[in-house]
Parts: sequence; C-alpha cells; structure tokens
Amino acid sequence: MNYPQALENLILEFMKYPGIGRKTAERYALFSVNKIDDDSAKAFSEALLKVKSSIKQCSICGHLTDVDPCSICTNPHRNQTQILVVETAKDVFSIEKSGRYHGLYHVLNGALSPMNGVGLDDLNFQSLWIRVQNDIVSEIIIATSATQEGEATAMYIKRVLKDIEIKVSRIGYGVPVGGNLEFADSETLSRAIENRREF
Amino acid sequence: MNYPQALENLILEFMKYPGIGRKTAERYALFSVNKIDDDSAKAFSEALLKVKSSIKQCSICGHLTDVDPCSICTNPHRNQTQILVVETAKDVFSIEKSGRYHGLYHVLNGALSPMNGVGLDDLNFQSLWIRVQNDIVSEIIIATSATQEGEATAMYIKRVLKDIEIKVSRIGYGVPVGGNLEFADSETLSRAIENRREF
Repeated sequence: MNYPQALENLILEFMKYPGIGRKTAERYALFSVNKIDDDSAKAFSEALLKVKSSIKQCSICGHLTDVDPCSICTNPHRNQTQILVVETAKDVFSIEKSGRYHGLYHVLNGALSPMNGVGLDDLNFQSLWIRVQNDIVSEIIIATSATQEGEATAMYIKRVLKDIEIKVSRIGYGVPVGGNLEFADSETLSRAIENRREF
Repeated sequence: MNYPQALENLILEFMKYPGIGRKTAERYALFSVNKIDDDSAKAFSEALLKVKSSIKQCSICGHLTDVDPCSICTNPHRNQTQILVVETAKDVFSIEKSGRYHGLYHVLNGALSPMNGVGLDDLNFQSLWIRVQNDIVSEIIIATSATQEGEATAMYIKRVLKDIEIKVSRIGYGVPVGGNLEFADSETLSRAIENRREF
C-alpha cells in the first residue's frame, strides 16, 4: 500500500460496488481528488446518507420509496384491480418509465433459487397472498424474468392462486429469453405488458 | 423522472464519475439501498470528505499527499540526485508499486497539448526549474507517456535543460507506444526505469 491512508480508504469503499475492481476504484478515488470539487463531494456524501436514511420498502408492495405506503399504492388513479409482480424495485422503475401500465405492483425482492439458497421465506410472498384476498383485485400479471428462477417463481405463484377466482397472466411478448427486465427498453416492456397471455 | 428524489440525487452524483452512465449509476444507487449497510454508507461518505479535506499536492514535487512536503520528498533515504518527471500522481503510485526506483519525483499534472488548451502555464514546470538549480540534482528522468503530448512535453524539458550541467534521460524500455503509464505493470515500469537512455 503506497497510497495515503485517506485515499486508500476511499479506494476500498469504491471497491464494494459491483464491477468496480482495484484499478477502477483507484481511478475514481483520484478523480475525486482532482476533478470533484468540495461542494460536489459534500453533495455526493449527503446524497448517499440521505438514500440510506429515507429510502425504504413500501409496506404494501415492497417497492422502494421515501413515503410509506408508496405513491403508487396510494394513487387513486391507478387501476386497483391489477397487481403486476416483479422481482426487483428496479423492474418497477423500468416499467414506470414505459408509461403504459397503470395498475399496482408487487416486488418479490428476488426469484426462487434453491441452488443459491433463496427459498419461499426469503421472498415477499406472504403480503401478496394477503393482497389477493381483496375482492377488488381481479388480475395478477407475473413479470418475473424469463430465466429459470423467474419461471420457477411464476409457476409457484400460478400454483398457489389456482383455486382462487382471479386471472393470472404472464407478460410474454418481447422480453428476451434468458434476459433480465432491467435491460429491456421501454417499448419492449410496454408491448410485453399489452401482449400478456393467460397463464 | 420516476425515482424518489433522494435516489435520483445519488444517481446524478454517481454520473459525475468517468465512464459511469445513467444505467450504471442507477445500478450503483440501487446497490447502495439494497447491499450497502448504514455503516458502510457512512464510511464511504466520510472517506470521500476526508480525501477532499486531507489530500493535497506536495508543494515541492506536486504529488498527492496528506502531509506537506510529501513523505517521498522528506525521506532522507531516497536518492536526492534523481528527479523522475511524470504527468500525474497516479504515475507516481504506479512506479512506487514497482519498488525499483528510489529517487525523487516531479508531477507535472498533465502534458503539453495546445489542441486541448494545455500550455506551459498550466503545468507544474516552474517548480521543476527551481529544483534543478539545486546542485545535488544530477539527473532528470523523463517518464511522460509515450503519446504525442507526452513526447512534446519531454522535448520541451530537454530543450529548457540543454544549457544546464545535468543528465537528462527518458525511460524507454517496455512502455508501449501510444499507451499511458497507468496501464503498465510493475515489471514493465521497473525495466523501463533501469533501461532509460540518454535523451
């Protein structure tokens, strides 16, 4: 270690982020010294702390929000009969960007993956089963990823809901097989939702 | 914008770093929410502010340091007769990592590049001319990058020093032409320094 301690510390912090190795972290740390002014550093630092203190999961749908329940769950103009089930909050942001879906969401916080130790109790299922008891809910749209884990999760939801008077659909059109929702563009996501099929 | 304001702010801060676009910044911001715990966020935030408040340029050599003059300039065991001239502090860290050079450094903070508006006054030359007046200095080793700008900078130094009784050398062996020192490995840098040639 030949960096001054303060620089070394910042390098190690950057390395905690995904895809940032030692060389990239060194680059960002030196960039912080040379190109980020004091005000920007303060703004970055405050933004990070503010995110940690203010962003929580919505107690109804599990989406990330700064108010609880989130602004989607409490919006009376949203279609209260539809719940679109996704793996991550990132997926909600992606679908909202497409602007074509006006129902509610449910964020599972992952997909079933016994190989990786993700089981039923690790995902946000219980609150979904409670939500579907509400008579106003008439359709569950499953938008888990088209991966093995995403499909297994979809099958599980379908199975649990099979005895309930509720339509269960799965987005289908356009989402590339083997891909994550995160990388789909807005148009693909819009069409995937419009072209959902009975599941 | 459909992200909560706090998240959006953090995304924008990440985007100030080189090579971080919107999608990557979103990924890092969401990673901050989901995978970085409160203590780590605090540590990151403090590390960034500490770097801004404590890391300065050494008033002698221009290297980044938390004490002024830096620990290299004030180390009595370093060879005081040699000054190795580099473009950036990053280059000093890279060469120090190789462990084969034991002289002093001089950081120019860039290379001459009239096309990009980098002229003589923008680089740390004046303090170099003052340092070479010291009789103890017998050799200037130029280790600017093997780019057009790095070569122009080397030529300029050579020209200014031509009437002074001082050896001017240029590292040569191993540094790939067209490349930056930053990407050279320790061994390549060691050999480049050992195999320097009269300039």
